[in-house]
Amino acid sequence: MASIPATRAWCEQRDAADPLAGLRAEFTLPEGIVYLDGNSLGALPKAAPGRVADLVERQWGHHLIASWNDAGWWDKPRALGAKIAPLVGAWPDEVVVGDGTSVNLFKTLVAALRLNPGRDVVVGEAGNFPTDLYMTQGAAELCGARERRVDRADAAAIRAALEPGDAAVLLLSHVDYRTGELRDMAGITRLAHEHGALVVWDLCHSVGALPVELNACGVDFAVGCTYKYLNGGPGAPAFTFAAERHHAAARQPLTGWHGHARPFDFTAEYAPAEGVSRFLSGSQPLVADAALEAGLDVFAGVDMALLRAKSLELGDLFIAVTERAGLGLLTPREHERRGSQVALRHPDGYAMVRALAARGVVGDFRDPDVLRFGFTPLYLRYVDVFDAASALVAVVESGEWRDPAFAERAQVT
Amino acid sequence: MASIPATRAWCEQRDAADPLAGLRAEFTLPEGIVYLDGNSLGALPKAAPGRVADLVERQWGHHLIASWNDAGWWDKPRALGAKIAPLVGAWPDEVVVGDGTSVNLFKTLVAALRLNPGRDVVVGEAGNFPTDLYMTQGAAELCGARERRVDRADAAAIRAALEPGDAAVLLLSHVDYRTGELRDMAGITRLAHEHGALVVWDLCHSVGALPVELNACGVDFAVGCTYKYLNGGPGAPAFTFAAERHHAAARQPLTGWHGHARPFDFTAEYAPAEGVSRFLSGSQPLVADAALEAGLDVFAGVDMALLRAKSLELGDLFIAVTERAGLGLLTPREHERRGSQVALRHPDGYAMVRALAARGVVGDFRDPDVLRFGFTPLYLRYVDVFDAASALVAVVESGEWRDPAFAERAQVT
Repeated sequence: MASIPATRAWCEQRDAADPLAGLRAEFTLPEGIVYLDGNSLGALPKAAPGRVADLVERQWGHHLIASWNDAGWWDKPRALGAKIAPLVGAWPDEVVVGDGTSVNLFKTLVAALRLNPGRDVVVGEAGNFPTDLYMTQGAAELCGARERRVDRADAAAIRAALEPGDAAVLLLSHVDYRTGELRDMAGITRLAHEHGALVVWDLCHSVGALPVELNACGVDFAVGCTYKYLNGGPGAPAFTFAAERHHAAARQPLTGWHGHARPFDFTAEYAPAEGVSRFLSGSQPLVADAALEAGLDVFAGVDMALLRAKSLELGDLFIAVTERAGLGLLTPREHERRGSQVALRHPDGYAMVRALAARGVVGDFRDPDVLRFGFTPLYLRYVDVFDAASALVAVVESGEWRDPAFAERAQVT
Repeated sequence: MASIPATRAWCEQRDAADPLAGLRAEFTLPEGIVYLDGNSLGALPKAAPGRVADLVERQWGHHLIASWNDAGWWDKPRALGAKIAPLVGAWPDEVVVGDGTSVNLFKTLVAALRLNPGRDVVVGEAGNFPTDLYMTQGAAELCGARERRVDRADAAAIRAALEPGDAAVLLLSHVDYRTGELRDMAGITRLAHEHGALVVWDLCHSVGALPVELNACGVDFAVGCTYKYLNGGPGAPAFTFAAERHHAAARQPLTGWHGHARPFDFTAEYAPAEGVSRFLSGSQPLVADAALEAGLDVFAGVDMALLRAKSLELGDLFIAVTERAGLGLLTPREHERRGSQVALRHPDGYAMVRALAARGVVGDFRDPDVLRFGFTPLYLRYVDVFDAASALVAVVESGEWRDPAFAERAQVT
């Protein structure tokens, strides 16, 4: 991690020179707020309300059923997938949008298990996001497979879990949702393949925040949500990546008619579609897709290397400014091991996050003691991050978080 | 089927006396069109654009992550389910909204198979909507179960399929998507239970069009879409019904964190939620949910018996007027065997539907020879149906459908 002059004047200079600065104008941001929770729910793209209104009022209200063809509704899962593909290093026909991350985890895990007969273990990480753990349990139980969890998603632990030679598939998150740690996708994927296992990567906390290179890393399957760094709207449909080499043989179990080879023949037997479309099941919520498309279109022409550089610098800045608050740093300092969030620890972190919100800075908290701050380079300025970090220091140093009102728990998502 | 005086003057009288007539004002309908395809995609409720805009601009854009609690996002699947419950004869806590019909078929089929160990057959109907067939194949394959399909969903055929005593579950559509035939939910459910099988009813083509009495009929599970007679918007999330008596034991396989007993404890092991919430998996598209909620709210206070009476009379009217066109009637005339659509047959039906559309009447067509016309009593007037039926007679008698332009196939959904 580079040392940076963490002053507001330096931040103003960086903003003035920022080649991505213009992208902030693409978003509607609430007045007087610094929003560091884009890793949970991305901000509203300015184009989204108009796109959604057009979908609702013109395509649905006026053209009704005709829009399934005329407005491209039928092909929307593929069209949106093609827009996500360049952000994850995939070919346009390797990604489809539909269903949620949880459901897509099930599809890809079962598909991977079926591609690897004779092996019956799913290797995962104990600290993965709960739905990854739970969907693995659900898929493993139905497939008669077993689970094996590593305590840490590092090469040594993963190697040990793969060495028995019974692992069919390895499921990991590219970025840890609590710590913000970025995993070595290339190295771990190679390790899995050397041990005869396929990989499913969960990209929820990396897609849109940093360059992802699925094909360069030889990844088999991936899933990800679109409502965090892709700014697709609350609960927006998720995506599935399947490497082209698996298209012919991969069989996912949720065999709905949208994944059929000839859906309008209405044949009695299921026959999977040729490409990644076989990972589709049923109709998708087009109203939500319209908002998502607005979010994806912001990325057109964005240089992901510039995005990554700014993201890391914002993280460096936040770490440097908050250092004096004396909170524990959970996120790796090294750039190659860090996603686009910084996590700090304190037993009273919940009250601190609440007190910080009262100062207009939105972060979030995860039990038992993790304060999380996400950095979305598309709409955050250096001065925003400086001000937010300074506010956190002030909250901690002033002790204002000790106000009992801040300790009162509301459900946090 | 009652004989009715199928004249325009009679229709005008019926419209003037129609207690549901005021509901038409709740919808935006394109000028100069009679829309008889509400059985595929319902019309736009006037409240939907405003609800969606509020979700997008205020709840998402302004309040961002706070809306998960403050705007009721987390509980939306249950809140929407409670609004569907009275339309299907269920208790509010027996229905949840989330995922699509195909995915929910998978969940309920697997749950039913697990509740009935020692039996391994899923009985279905050969003519069911393709995704019902395909999802059954997918679920059966993964569970090591077998399929058995009846050629006709009548009591005799179903009894024969159940008699071997190996059927774990029976899946039927309440209304046949092509013929519009309404099945005897009470009698067939009883028959299944007498033979030790559970039932899953697909309500896609009945919910919102006629009273459904799931609990009075002793139904175990049901699924249905919300974008047809419920007017929830294209691809809007579907719903799942699970009878309360199964809540404690039912285990569906898509065990995502939204179905967890304590989702915010982030525990390592899955534990299903107490009630029907265990049928949830992951986050749902809130933007689409907002449109759906507008559609459901139209039903508040609507007397479903009146709705049913009008629906049947509209069907009677359409059949009476189109009789002279000499097309084959595929739909049962008897009220107790008819849903809310009328299907006619002709080898050149496709061209006829296209020619009819050129006259401003939207119906649809299903291979090989089925012309389908849906009747939505919420927004259709008697005069609309009379004019549409008269236009179909004119199309057939004039031979204008023979114009080669009408024979040219576009993909129809």
